[in-house]
Amino acid sequence: MADKEVRLFGMWASPFTKRVEWALKLKGIEYEYVNESIPFSKSEELLRLNPVTKKIPVLVHNGKPLAESLVIIEYIDETWKEGYSIMPKDPYDLAQARFWAKFADDKGTMSLLHVFSKEGEVQQKAVEEAREVFKTLEQALEGKKFFGGDCINYLDLAIGWYAFWLPIIEETVNVSMVDDANAPLLKAWFGRFLEVDVIKSILPPRDKTSEMSKIRRNQLLSNMP
Amino acid sequence: MADKEVRLFGMWASPFTKRVEWALKLKGIEYEYVNESIPFSKSEELLRLNPVTKKIPVLVHNGKPLAESLVIIEYIDETWKEGYSIMPKDPYDLAQARFWAKFADDKGTMSLLHVFSKEGEVQQKAVEEAREVFKTLEQALEGKKFFGGDCINYLDLAIGWYAFWLPIIEETVNVSMVDDANAPLLKAWFGRFLEVDVIKSILPPRDKTSEMSKIRRNQLLSNMP
Repeated sequence: MADKEVRLFGMWASPFTKRVEWALKLKGIEYEYVNESIPFSKSEELLRLNPVTKKIPVLVHNGKPLAESLVIIEYIDETWKEGYSIMPKDPYDLAQARFWAKFADDKGTMSLLHVFSKEGEVQQKAVEEAREVFKTLEQALEGKKFFGGDCINYLDLAIGWYAFWLPIIEETVNVSMVDDANAPLLKAWFGRFLEVDVIKSILPPRDKTSEMSKIRRNQLLSNMP
Repeated sequence: MADKEVRLFGMWASPFTKRVEWALKLKGIEYEYVNESIPFSKSEELLRLNPVTKKIPVLVHNGKPLAESLVIIEYIDETWKEGYSIMPKDPYDLAQARFWAKFADDKGTMSLLHVFSKEGEVQQKAVEEAREVFKTLEQALEGKKFFGGDCINYLDLAIGWYAFWLPIIEETVNVSMVDDANAPLLKAWFGRFLEVDVIKSILPPRDKTSEMSKIRRNQLLSNMP
């Protein structure tokens, strides 16, 4: 049996998998989705496809594997040039989008990891850092409907997972990070982003994700892998 | 007095500044270099140009600032399309180069920071991690003269700083990470990379860098900023 042209190895509740699914859907690319039972096991095929970081998502295009969600998004836009334009066309706008995506991943995601997996003072410090990151991040949104302007693009996809997962994290650990006091523009964008048809059509079930979030938090607090 | 078209804010011994200088030089772009006295002070102009991360290097092109060395390199290649081609043309090769550059920055640079700034068990663990990273990284070099193939390109520039700075770090902390036993291909590439004219012409003085490395290590061990 021939492989499908495009296969995506992911995990149903993984924000980084969703980034890639959103990009594929925006381009109208058909793909076969393979779900991995992360964090409990990884298939031999995944380990063969991404022996370096062993992480999902992995996109396989004509048998060739690609890893790192933001790298995959750029690849998708460069390979399927027709249709929806994901990367900004102007080199300066493109550089700014890449800068902010890196800032969000380096600073925001790292802080959120500590917010989610720690308690007490360490957690509180991470909450403050995260609030600062979100406040800073919304500068890139000033005067615009989406980070990409009138329509979503790369930066919306890169940080779009906050819109769905951040309220779940806030609820799970009982803190507030993106609110009208701290980051009103970002909070309003959360709502607009989740209303985009393609985005809305590729989200995990809210209840199931919320439930898994609570289970995962307890696992991490108990130092489970 | 009118600003030069291209200005680069950097620090003379900063590997990330050198990345950008190499790219500018490969393209034959003239620029004004502004040295910052990091880590002891940052100019008001730098803080105005990069208020988000406050880090060098910052490239200013026609008055517009750009930060993050790898983002700047992509911008340079996309803006000055003529001359030396820095980014791979094939989307898959490009994605692979971006993947490895990210892997090196996420894993290698982080390990090296601990090798350089810690002692005892923490340092030893970081040395082992770094050795593993370098061993993995040289997979991307198999059968090739440079990471870019016959000529240097993006990935060579991204990890090129290891070729000059890693032996200095090894010497400063008295450990070996890239050697014939662990990463022979990478070690041989160190020599070839440093022999490329453009690279060689933009390196800080070896003795001064080595001396500064020892001073900096002692500062970090004493918890100086």
